[in-house]
Amino acid sequence: MHYEQLASLGQQLRVDAVRAADAAGSGHPTSSMSAADIAAVLLSHHLRFDFDHPEHPGNDRFVLSKGHASPLLYAMYKAAGAVDDDELLTFRKLGSRLEGHPTPRLPWVDVATGSLGQGLPVGVGIALAGKRLDEIPYRVYVLSGDSEMAEGSVWEAVEHAAYNHLDNLTLIVDVNRLGQRGPTRHEHDLDAYARRLHAFGWHTIEVDGHDVEAVDRAFAEARSTIRQPTAILAATRKGRGVAAVEDREGFHGKPVKDAEAAIAELGGPRSLHVEVQRPPEASGRKTARNGAPELPRFDIGDTVATRTAYGHALEALGSARGDVVALDAEVSDSTRTEFFAKAHPERYFECYIAEQQLVAAAVGLQTRGYVPYASTFAAFLTRAYDFVRMAAVSRAGINLVGSHAGVAIGQDGPSQMGLEDLAMFRSVHGSTVLHPCDANQTAKLVAAMADLEGVRYLRTSRGDMPVLYGPDEPFPVGGSKVLRSHGDDDKATIVAAGVTVHEALKAADLLAEYGIPVRVIDLYSVKPVDTETLNDAAGATGCLLTVEDHHPEGGLGDAVADAFSDGRPAPRMARLAVRNMPASATPEEQLHEAGIDAEAIAAAVRLLVERVIAP
Amino acid sequence: MHYEQLASLGQQLRVDAVRAADAAGSGHPTSSMSAADIAAVLLSHHLRFDFDHPEHPGNDRFVLSKGHASPLLYAMYKAAGAVDDDELLTFRKLGSRLEGHPTPRLPWVDVATGSLGQGLPVGVGIALAGKRLDEIPYRVYVLSGDSEMAEGSVWEAVEHAAYNHLDNLTLIVDVNRLGQRGPTRHEHDLDAYARRLHAFGWHTIEVDGHDVEAVDRAFAEARSTIRQPTAILAATRKGRGVAAVEDREGFHGKPVKDAEAAIAELGGPRSLHVEVQRPPEASGRKTARNGAPELPRFDIGDTVATRTAYGHALEALGSARGDVVALDAEVSDSTRTEFFAKAHPERYFECYIAEQQLVAAAVGLQTRGYVPYASTFAAFLTRAYDFVRMAAVSRAGINLVGSHAGVAIGQDGPSQMGLEDLAMFRSVHGSTVLHPCDANQTAKLVAAMADLEGVRYLRTSRGDMPVLYGPDEPFPVGGSKVLRSHGDDDKATIVAAGVTVHEALKAADLLAEYGIPVRVIDLYSVKPVDTETLNDAAGATGCLLTVEDHHPEGGLGDAVADAFSDGRPAPRMARLAVRNMPASATPEEQLHEAGIDAEAIAAAVRLLVERVIAP
Repeated sequence: MHYEQLASLGQQLRVDAVRAADAAGSGHPTSSMSAADIAAVLLSHHLRFDFDHPEHPGNDRFVLSKGHASPLLYAMYKAAGAVDDDELLTFRKLGSRLEGHPTPRLPWVDVATGSLGQGLPVGVGIALAGKRLDEIPYRVYVLSGDSEMAEGSVWEAVEHAAYNHLDNLTLIVDVNRLGQRGPTRHEHDLDAYARRLHAFGWHTIEVDGHDVEAVDRAFAEARSTIRQPTAILAATRKGRGVAAVEDREGFHGKPVKDAEAAIAELGGPRSLHVEVQRPPEASGRKTARNGAPELPRFDIGDTVATRTAYGHALEALGSARGDVVALDAEVSDSTRTEFFAKAHPERYFECYIAEQQLVAAAVGLQTRGYVPYASTFAAFLTRAYDFVRMAAVSRAGINLVGSHAGVAIGQDGPSQMGLEDLAMFRSVHGSTVLHPCDANQTAKLVAAMADLEGVRYLRTSRGDMPVLYGPDEPFPVGGSKVLRSHGDDDKATIVAAGVTVHEALKAADLLAEYGIPVRVIDLYSVKPVDTETLNDAAGATGCLLTVEDHHPEGGLGDAVADAFSDGRPAPRMARLAVRNMPASATPEEQLHEAGIDAEAIAAAVRLLVERVIAP
Repeated sequence: MHYEQLASLGQQLRVDAVRAADAAGSGHPTSSMSAADIAAVLLSHHLRFDFDHPEHPGNDRFVLSKGHASPLLYAMYKAAGAVDDDELLTFRKLGSRLEGHPTPRLPWVDVATGSLGQGLPVGVGIALAGKRLDEIPYRVYVLSGDSEMAEGSVWEAVEHAAYNHLDNLTLIVDVNRLGQRGPTRHEHDLDAYARRLHAFGWHTIEVDGHDVEAVDRAFAEARSTIRQPTAILAATRKGRGVAAVEDREGFHGKPVKDAEAAIAELGGPRSLHVEVQRPPEASGRKTARNGAPELPRFDIGDTVATRTAYGHALEALGSARGDVVALDAEVSDSTRTEFFAKAHPERYFECYIAEQQLVAAAVGLQTRGYVPYASTFAAFLTRAYDFVRMAAVSRAGINLVGSHAGVAIGQDGPSQMGLEDLAMFRSVHGSTVLHPCDANQTAKLVAAMADLEGVRYLRTSRGDMPVLYGPDEPFPVGGSKVLRSHGDDDKATIVAAGVTVHEALKAADLLAEYGIPVRVIDLYSVKPVDTETLNDAAGATGCLLTVEDHHPEGGLGDAVADAFSDGRPAPRMARLAVRNMPASATPEEQLHEAGIDAEAIAAAVRLLVERVIAP
């Protein structure tokens, strides 16, 4: 396209953004208009994308990090012939694929955006896949707002991209000077952004974002830059082209008031069609499967930490499946991801202490068909909760493994203890939450996770624990194990997971001395939960005690209570959990102080049974 | 002190770090040893601190961001005479104040550390208090590791500190080259850090961190630098002084093996005492109270969004109380914090789109006695979950307000919807979780929050809702309101909060048409929960339906179920919540699609009642 045509296409994208938001009665046309010329140039001259085959391995990737500028994205799709004008005008309406912020309900959208500062970290993950795994020369383009450059996650990604020499990654910052409520910190000072990015090792280009020729040259320069990612810092004007809103405060996230006049001012509707370049031939990823994984086998009675079992199982899974990759946030010696890293260094991604980048890289890698396992301390996954939440909106399939669960870690104290992780992961849409108590169980669950959908979370423990199950025992997700039962003689049921399973078994022994036979359930699958087994236990024993190394809210106790929320009669229930603020102490002392050790369990069961027997 | 004495003090701090970790059998002596000379110089020549009066308003602040180097901190306290040798050797033992990572159980520790990348953001909050509120020339020193410079939160803080010209803030980076599992990205390349910090507007100084004279000069230079924060980049060696561990991998987080030999190598035990400089006289903060706040009053039947009521109430609270401050992450027009910002600009802190810095600044401000209210969309508070979790460990009193709760926001779609926030905040130790449905209720709760302890969370809604309560109605935290009741005739109880209260009332009307009288409870206090009222309702109606604009896990349904976890007979329960993945739609359509509107509630109650009547 000639530059005049590109400029005209930019106006068309503006017109369609205005029209879409006008039809919706909401949306962000002014944020779309600032980036319209950039989008026109990218779509016409640089992006290689087969809209008929979004799964084409050679396709470039375009991530609209400023997801609120969705009208621009949809206008691009229309210009490329991927959506028609009727669909464009369904924007933000019930049932439309054109949501307020883009999601993978559209086949050309890899990841949902709309929580700012996520596009670049996820783009880094895709670019890593391209460089290190796919070895396909697709490029990753991330269009970001200037406001979102304040997010720390952006700088984790900036550092990681430069460190990994991701020259297949181009960041375009639409520096339109205005955030939601007013001016950004740096307004139109492009050099403020360039200085920062340059200091981190990026190649930077400053342009007038409405000069299509300059933008075109910038993209070309980015493509020819090697060993460095490139950032194009584009000075633009929010609401560009419509005087009533251009570069003015107070017009964020609102349709342009007089749409008809605005469209006329923009030169009226156009119907330019862009023949987007097809990607070169590329073969898919090389992910051979070598049969079923040879999972590690542990002997009953040995003592093994579940984090260690995780490490060995992941290594074995990696040997059997070429699509499995591992990531860690600089604690692989603690999480035991190091076993995988040593065995499969080409598929291991060190993310350093940057948990948002850790999860974002996993999300990026799974867009390319890989099965990522990302690990750090359970406590530190809280750092990435927004990325986990958005991973669910992205329909991403990722495995997250949090080690050092609960007070049982001992001396390191509360800052290192995962005590909110079950709550955090249970409340994520479509998630799976697993908490094994035994090495063989862990190994089986690590393998099972790979083939689930959505966000999968595995909680591992620091300390050694006795192996309870044989290596051939099956552990279906959504299941549980009844470890002790005396049939209808059971007077109560103890429901536990992880370290508290072992305490529950000791408590059962103590209670036997008092003549109180109890059932013990190992609820290793916290979500989905084994409602049937819990119901059977409730029917047989009439009362349940849950015990967990987690705060009382959102974890095992809540999961068990929820199993009885179908309107049927519920058993009497009580729960033990970490209600104190822990300090430093030995693991045994910690369990005792928190009131979740065998002694506390036995005492609680006695109280519960007495109430049942004589209410 | 002469420089030889300073060097000797550095050795003493090393010896004591080795001794403490040896006595504990765990801990991080090598991470302490790298920074010992820096600590010696700071303590002896620069820090002004009255250990007898940690509340002294003129005290400098020292935040050990690399909290795992706690043995160094405790060795400093010993050198200053604040703890004795016996207490030093209680390190990491049950009951000791000297925890594995520092917490405010020690009166000289303002905030807990141990989750890396938090010290600087919190330090920025304290420095902001010093500059803008206290107007006291205390300095804030943050000692950080080099590994934690990978955390995005650090760069949010770096940007914020420079933008606010915090020349009262000094960051010392202990560049010891080694992280937990191996070398850092930049190892001893001090300039890599300096370039980045300089680009963000910091003054930077590169020194040999074991050259006490150079370190001393660097601190002096930092103190004389105006309009810019200063970063001292100190090249150090992990495990410095003990050849067996110095600058070697594999010795992170482990006591030195042969402690006796190591102590001898370090020159043996010493007993240098540091007479720490006292701070200059300073008067406390100027926080006049002008009587009770004149909260806004809304008329029953008017429609007002709870976020708007929050904004007005916060403004009024700010007028009555000089200690109340407000912060926002660039969405004050949406959260309505803008009302406070306009009325009290001197106590308003714009944090831009940096939610970790938002919460960290609130934590920093509360260490100086202020009562912060920090707001953004509920969904985006997930970005700061690790800071919220650590705020609880810090015993921080902060108010967090999340707007745009649930699917009821409408067209913007799932990325903008707070659907995990109740779970996230409920599971925080000692937290309070409030979710009003009405403008007068909101105003009362905003005022009540100010005087609570711990992390307080208020969930507000985007859309206008009818005012249900008069302006003089009391709303105690931990209470609830029975909005409909027919005494023992009630066949079921609907428990709701926020927008679902209004749907529940409509459902009650629908059910009345079917001849099913129901009780409706407005459970505005989700934590603590009103167990008594719920028990009464359970006793009277036998069955409860919870309905919430939140995912099914961790929120209102779990809170209500937990109210029946004391071993007593529980009612039959069922729950409605957002189980679908929402897309764009009108608020009404969203409630319908999620199955939490009046129609869905009425249908669920009928099913529940039928089961109760004929199980």
